[in-house]
Amino acid sequence: MAELPRHKVLLDESDIPTRWYNIIPDLPTPPPPPLHPGTGQPVGPEDLAPLFPEQLILQEVTADRYVEIPGEVLDVYRLWRPAPLYRAHGLEKALGTPARIYYKYEGVSPAGSHKPNTSVPQAYYNAKAGVRKLTTETGAGQWGTALSFACSIYGLECEVWQVGATYDQKPYRRMMMEIFGASVHRSPSEVTQSGKAILAERADHPGSLGIAISEAVEVAAGDPEARYALGSVLNHVLLHQTVIGEETLLQFAKIGEVPDVLVGCVGGGSNFAGLAFPFLREKLAGRMSPVVRAVEPTSCPSLTKGKYAYDFGDTAGLTPLLKMHTLGHGFVPDPIHAGGLRYHGMAPLLSHVHDLGMIEALAVPQSECFVAAIQFARAEGIVAAPESSHALAACIREALACKETGEERVILAALSGHGHLDMPSYQAYLTGAISDEVITEDRFTASLAELPEIQG
Amino acid sequence: MAELPRHKVLLDESDIPTRWYNIIPDLPTPPPPPLHPGTGQPVGPEDLAPLFPEQLILQEVTADRYVEIPGEVLDVYRLWRPAPLYRAHGLEKALGTPARIYYKYEGVSPAGSHKPNTSVPQAYYNAKAGVRKLTTETGAGQWGTALSFACSIYGLECEVWQVGATYDQKPYRRMMMEIFGASVHRSPSEVTQSGKAILAERADHPGSLGIAISEAVEVAAGDPEARYALGSVLNHVLLHQTVIGEETLLQFAKIGEVPDVLVGCVGGGSNFAGLAFPFLREKLAGRMSPVVRAVEPTSCPSLTKGKYAYDFGDTAGLTPLLKMHTLGHGFVPDPIHAGGLRYHGMAPLLSHVHDLGMIEALAVPQSECFVAAIQFARAEGIVAAPESSHALAACIREALACKETGEERVILAALSGHGHLDMPSYQAYLTGAISDEVITEDRFTASLAELPEIQG
Repeated sequence: MAELPRHKVLLDESDIPTRWYNIIPDLPTPPPPPLHPGTGQPVGPEDLAPLFPEQLILQEVTADRYVEIPGEVLDVYRLWRPAPLYRAHGLEKALGTPARIYYKYEGVSPAGSHKPNTSVPQAYYNAKAGVRKLTTETGAGQWGTALSFACSIYGLECEVWQVGATYDQKPYRRMMMEIFGASVHRSPSEVTQSGKAILAERADHPGSLGIAISEAVEVAAGDPEARYALGSVLNHVLLHQTVIGEETLLQFAKIGEVPDVLVGCVGGGSNFAGLAFPFLREKLAGRMSPVVRAVEPTSCPSLTKGKYAYDFGDTAGLTPLLKMHTLGHGFVPDPIHAGGLRYHGMAPLLSHVHDLGMIEALAVPQSECFVAAIQFARAEGIVAAPESSHALAACIREALACKETGEERVILAALSGHGHLDMPSYQAYLTGAISDEVITEDRFTASLAELPEIQG
Repeated sequence: MAELPRHKVLLDESDIPTRWYNIIPDLPTPPPPPLHPGTGQPVGPEDLAPLFPEQLILQEVTADRYVEIPGEVLDVYRLWRPAPLYRAHGLEKALGTPARIYYKYEGVSPAGSHKPNTSVPQAYYNAKAGVRKLTTETGAGQWGTALSFACSIYGLECEVWQVGATYDQKPYRRMMMEIFGASVHRSPSEVTQSGKAILAERADHPGSLGIAISEAVEVAAGDPEARYALGSVLNHVLLHQTVIGEETLLQFAKIGEVPDVLVGCVGGGSNFAGLAFPFLREKLAGRMSPVVRAVEPTSCPSLTKGKYAYDFGDTAGLTPLLKMHTLGHGFVPDPIHAGGLRYHGMAPLLSHVHDLGMIEALAVPQSECFVAAIQFARAEGIVAAPESSHALAACIREALACKETGEERVILAALSGHGHLDMPSYQAYLTGAISDEVITEDRFTASLAELPEIQG
């Protein structure tokens, strides 16, 4: 029998990276610091202490190229890591492309996405610091599920504000958080001042990540035994996610391949940065030269149409000012099905890397993403999360371009999670109940006009 | 750093078994043959030809100990196989047991259960025989999803009758089948004579596997280009599932462990047989001596309270007579959440193995299963299917018995699938909306009284 094509590139548990990679010391210029909204001065560790434990604050500002992963965290990572790298033979055949397509699949984790890569260390450091409860926001529910799981492992309480639109669309997500022991509120909620203020204006408000962040931050800041956990955007979150890229480098080395193009979806940017940063390190060192492309929804185009400016991370203006690609903290994206990509801003570190010209950005409409995801499911057997489907759409565009030119490019897609709890989104697409919003620039003129005056 | 405990025992794609194991030649007596309900004579291949392609009929009756797996099937198996074997360190710690607990996890497949192990070869042999469409029934939806996926791979149409109770309880399952391109009916349906007759008696009938089988068989038998596919019960289905046990034997050999107890849930019996039969071969050969225990729901106790007799496989009486543990083909189990275990009978081959005293059986109530599944999720990060939770309940009973006695037994549990599409069942449990039905013997006195007169 002829040798069959391999589908998976697996690593051993002993191959899980033992340190996280911090891209900052390798950049030509450091990213602009977060600023205090009152003084306009860079925020110090003491400003963050009400929200985060010391170890995470140190990771947020570290200048070290590598940070050791605690053994207790590695031990939990081992429940699902290393995550598989797949060769998409089925999709290649369906497309008739000469390209070789690979995808790094984070859907094997307890929450079904890349989010536990950071929820586990975050819960660990908080538990070690004596924190009793973590609060957080969640968009699609992936992050809330991941933090609920991590809290169940380390014995912490977990209180989650879920964006109203997805709370309503995807009830299974809330149920999964409850299985892991969390309590979940629909955001905006009556539990917080920020939530009440917004409900007073509009009782059926669909919510947004920015609003949910305001609520979770408000509760954590008012409870000395509680802290807040963020699932994306911040440096320490991107740091934790670099296990994705480090593993993928090992996997490519194992099969002797080098990617020509990397694509991944971006909401806050953590999954994309987690895959891309270790590859960018290799590129900076001259060891490879992949094109690195972030893919966002056309209805929330912070990288392709936003402004690179200081803005609040949340809607109510409770966070420090972050220099990032933003549509304005008052921008409320339409309730598209990729709830995890409905964020007005973009991770400051990833925004900086984009500003340095190290990555490209592309916006795709959601109907194209569903077409891609259904083709992928029928060829590869995996139903992707609507967020991850943005990477698939970009991957298929690239593979079809190769079909035109005959180029045998090596494409690497970040498949951030499965869509098992997102079936109603597929249902909506299959029954013709979704369309692509035409987003014109005037949609965020107002929110961009309200950027803070302090601009570094 | 001290060596961390390993969570996963992984195999390479080249370790996937290249042949299926048939236990029949190793048994002291062969299982009683299926009988024609009209003549009382053993059915021949010609009786099965309207329903199944020749290759599957040959596998149904083969006396060969091993059957080669076609390369085209292995190539699809490689999308997810070999499936991981996990050491449940987290659960052991939570229970405080000296037992070493392992679970073989089939939830990594495209359908999220063991079912694609047989849907793939079934679709393959049908496609090769020129069949255009496959019909089938599905209980929890796992089998329907698996067949939909396999049909999408081989370009076949797929028409599914889903048991009404789960069609209503778990809409995400139908949506997933539709993503893979299948069309799905609520059973009983108006599409068939069998369905119409039952709806005429009771318009809101919750359905049963027996009824859904009648409907799918009726449509396949009436369309020369269509065939029927069954997800459990038959010999060829159990044969295909033996890849589970063969892999697990390799995994145990790799770590130098030998199981003392094997537990797995049983509905039709295919996941359990798939894990158990290769271990029973080793036991018959004197190479190990595990206790092998099938776990069924108290509300559908075919092994523990049924009769070992000839009965129809479906409700309408369209199938051959099968000698099996049965509660009577007219028995309609309560709509418990483990929809995949709601079958009046048990695989004839597994029934025979039970009759030979080679396996034990145990019935557990569903509330105990949910307690076990939630404890498992919080410790191991996997939300199990309600069916699989029966194995977890039995596993935890065994582990707690070890805690009493101090015995360091090695327990192997068959974790047949994930419960991502079963969240409403967990929700019902967490909100106190389910209880354990008290099933008394008179619940199936009537259906047992209506067994066919022909009894071999």
